[in-house]
Amino acid sequence: MMFDMNSIIRKIAEEIRPSEQERRRLMDIYEHVKSTLETCLSLSLNRDVEVTLQGSLAKDTFLRGQSDIDVFLLFQPRSDTDYRWFKEVLVPVVISCFKDYRYTLNYASHPYVTLYVDDVEVNIVPAFRIESPSKIISAVDRTPFHTKYVRSHLSIEQRDEVRVLKYFLKQWGLYGAEASTRGFSGYLAELLVIAYGTFLTLLKNCTSWRAYETCIDIENQYKSKRECLEKFRNDVLVVVDPVDPGRNAASALSVKSFALFKLLAGLFIERPSPMFFRINEIEIHSNVPTEEVVRMHVEEYGSCLYGLEFDIVKPIPDVVWGQLNRLRKAVTNTLRSQGIGEVVRADSWIDRALTKAITVVEIIYCNKRYTLHRGPYAYDVHNALRFLIKNKSIGMGPWINDDGRLYTFRMIDTNIVKIIMDTILRCSPTSLRLTKVLDLGNRETLQTVDPGFKEWLRSFLEGDPIKKIMKLLEDSYLDP
Amino acid sequence: MMFDMNSIIRKIAEEIRPSEQERRRLMDIYEHVKSTLETCLSLSLNRDVEVTLQGSLAKDTFLRGQSDIDVFLLFQPRSDTDYRWFKEVLVPVVISCFKDYRYTLNYASHPYVTLYVDDVEVNIVPAFRIESPSKIISAVDRTPFHTKYVRSHLSIEQRDEVRVLKYFLKQWGLYGAEASTRGFSGYLAELLVIAYGTFLTLLKNCTSWRAYETCIDIENQYKSKRECLEKFRNDVLVVVDPVDPGRNAASALSVKSFALFKLLAGLFIERPSPMFFRINEIEIHSNVPTEEVVRMHVEEYGSCLYGLEFDIVKPIPDVVWGQLNRLRKAVTNTLRSQGIGEVVRADSWIDRALTKAITVVEIIYCNKRYTLHRGPYAYDVHNALRFLIKNKSIGMGPWINDDGRLYTFRMIDTNIVKIIMDTILRCSPTSLRLTKVLDLGNRETLQTVDPGFKEWLRSFLEGDPIKKIMKLLEDSYLDP
Repeated sequence: MMFDMNSIIRKIAEEIRPSEQERRRLMDIYEHVKSTLETCLSLSLNRDVEVTLQGSLAKDTFLRGQSDIDVFLLFQPRSDTDYRWFKEVLVPVVISCFKDYRYTLNYASHPYVTLYVDDVEVNIVPAFRIESPSKIISAVDRTPFHTKYVRSHLSIEQRDEVRVLKYFLKQWGLYGAEASTRGFSGYLAELLVIAYGTFLTLLKNCTSWRAYETCIDIENQYKSKRECLEKFRNDVLVVVDPVDPGRNAASALSVKSFALFKLLAGLFIERPSPMFFRINEIEIHSNVPTEEVVRMHVEEYGSCLYGLEFDIVKPIPDVVWGQLNRLRKAVTNTLRSQGIGEVVRADSWIDRALTKAITVVEIIYCNKRYTLHRGPYAYDVHNALRFLIKNKSIGMGPWINDDGRLYTFRMIDTNIVKIIMDTILRCSPTSLRLTKVLDLGNRETLQTVDPGFKEWLRSFLEGDPIKKIMKLLEDSYLDP
Repeated sequence: MMFDMNSIIRKIAEEIRPSEQERRRLMDIYEHVKSTLETCLSLSLNRDVEVTLQGSLAKDTFLRGQSDIDVFLLFQPRSDTDYRWFKEVLVPVVISCFKDYRYTLNYASHPYVTLYVDDVEVNIVPAFRIESPSKIISAVDRTPFHTKYVRSHLSIEQRDEVRVLKYFLKQWGLYGAEASTRGFSGYLAELLVIAYGTFLTLLKNCTSWRAYETCIDIENQYKSKRECLEKFRNDVLVVVDPVDPGRNAASALSVKSFALFKLLAGLFIERPSPMFFRINEIEIHSNVPTEEVVRMHVEEYGSCLYGLEFDIVKPIPDVVWGQLNRLRKAVTNTLRSQGIGEVVRADSWIDRALTKAITVVEIIYCNKRYTLHRGPYAYDVHNALRFLIKNKSIGMGPWINDDGRLYTFRMIDTNIVKIIMDTILRCSPTSLRLTKVLDLGNRETLQTVDPGFKEWLRSFLEGDPIKKIMKLLEDSYLDP
């Protein structure tokens, strides 16, 4: 059965478009918060402040049942209005204004209050009102400019296109610019729809994006593609921020997310299916328990599976994820460079409460005791002699191969756990503390772990999301 | 203890220089053969023929106790004087001239008779007397020109230098241009001494030879190095034949032999020792039997060791070796491309009688059932989808790595013996017939093999000649 792309997209758009009632309710909450703040702050503070609505509610690009409300308090820049004043004076006042409501404090990149009003999250964020984005004092000061730009450039129909794109990204774990995802932010999704007009046109066009060679510059702020790429040479994709040409709205995107998005887009174009928007219904080995998947990896692939368990000391998500990603790379690089295992794979999990993290390291064929080292050409005498001296009697070889190179089969340091622990020690992460190294290949150990982690482990081992893509391909023939 | 290079070389030169008595005796044999031939041929044949001395005796570059005598019968080119006439008329006549002597017939690239006179091999080779090497009819017609060139360009002192070089090459298995060695021919050794003056100067200068980028053109027959290299672009080293500029005297040299020679030269310069000329005295694990070495490889490196046993159907050494080398490459390439084993090593042995050949294939960590395949970048949508379709459910994965590429862990075809046999079948060698595939890791099988092969196997597994080089390095410190 062949599906029509447009009808799939229109159907999804209907499903995820918020109802008039929902929008009304959220706006009512906002109006209530706004008037409370205006009254309360004018009584408590001697500051000029503007209460504004930002975020996807302001832009009408939020998904049904999934909106929070972003309220920005805009202050005039003044020497006595600083982070410290936000934190020590403003935030307590805001809390006191809403003493009947549940709230949380957030001091991540910026101090702000999250209020729960009628089960809706309301973020109350202080920022500065500046003339132009080139004069930002804090990162959030850019937000009102983003809101304004998107509102004035997205038609009503295109807000649906943004919603479809966001929903698509969420399905495949690609939504969000934070370090845990390194995917597409909401603002980036909006810019892409502005650039391409519709979700479908975006999908059709993105297949010609080339990694590190594509610059999307909606407002033509750069003279040439080349100039643009030179400015952002380390970013896999460049989408110039229309309100701040020095910023790449896609800078957080990883090559992995970039690749997955392109792959999905290409596949959807070739083989459209509503299942792209219902991936929870794609079942892959759903009845195989994690224990079985682990056993398969240990027995079939000769895998060692280690779980590096950390206590999270400073629960700032981007910092924790940044450190976990660095650790993961350091550990896999060290193991690879020592020739341990055929393949080393790793990924990290964090619990919901942000108290514990586990990095899983899978080392395939970990029971090898020797590894091949390719040396210099034997005719490169200086280096060849150094190689021979260095490789005196530590395994088989060296020998000269048909290619004229020296090779040796070198003994591996098989104390893998120690190598991992030393690597972590060297990285000395400030927000993580290693508590133990779990042998996940051990059935009893596996029974003690967090159920959420156990489920995540299964998905890691099974190679999500590619397994779901494979399922979509099943029984199909794509003309190569 | 530090040795002086010159004194080592002078000492060796003394040892290997033939005595006056030996030279006299060989010349006497030659004179006897020559006069017998002159008389006998003039009686039996109606052809103008010149009996000449060629080879290392003629050039006085032979080693003590190691000379055979090359006698060339030079005929005028004539339509009725062809290979067939050589074979059917001349050779029987030559044999009849020496009916009291033991002889063998050789029909390799050229029909000739080898006579055993007083335990000395005398090769009687028919060839054509031509005006210039550009007009050769048979490959051996060039020989008289080589002899003349070398005789007129080597001083008496330099003949010693050639001998030392030849002896050095023999020690390390680098002497001979035939397919079994792919090393340095005697003529090449002579040219190198002519080019560099002495053995030591050659060693000192060869360290600056660069693979595929060195052209030694003694007579400056090419306008530029570039022109020379373009002409011989597939040869690792070019030594233009002074008597035939279209020919590279080093064309048979393999990159492996080239590499080993440079390595040895560099090492001798850095650490001169008489042991370079006495490598049979360098003992490496001499008391470990082959069985033990095999056991070590099987148990420590997880090796499978196969011996592909061939009957030699047509015993022409260069053809057999050429086919063995091709087979060996085909087998290792096939196994590697299928991801079988961590490392595949192979080499071949032929018995002295030229009746049987065994190619040994060592597959390290051969018990692996899966192998890593690196696919295209996931953002290269067309190829990524093809890769996904191709790799449906045949092992672990595919997954997207941090580098944005697709990887899969693919099941290996573990019927190694069948893969090897299919590959040999595809090559269909004309001079070899596969008789069986031996499992050399099996102790009982190992006990049934030829003792010469068993000794050779030990040396193959232990990585000669690098093991001997390592021994020379032992207890030494070479400033890197």
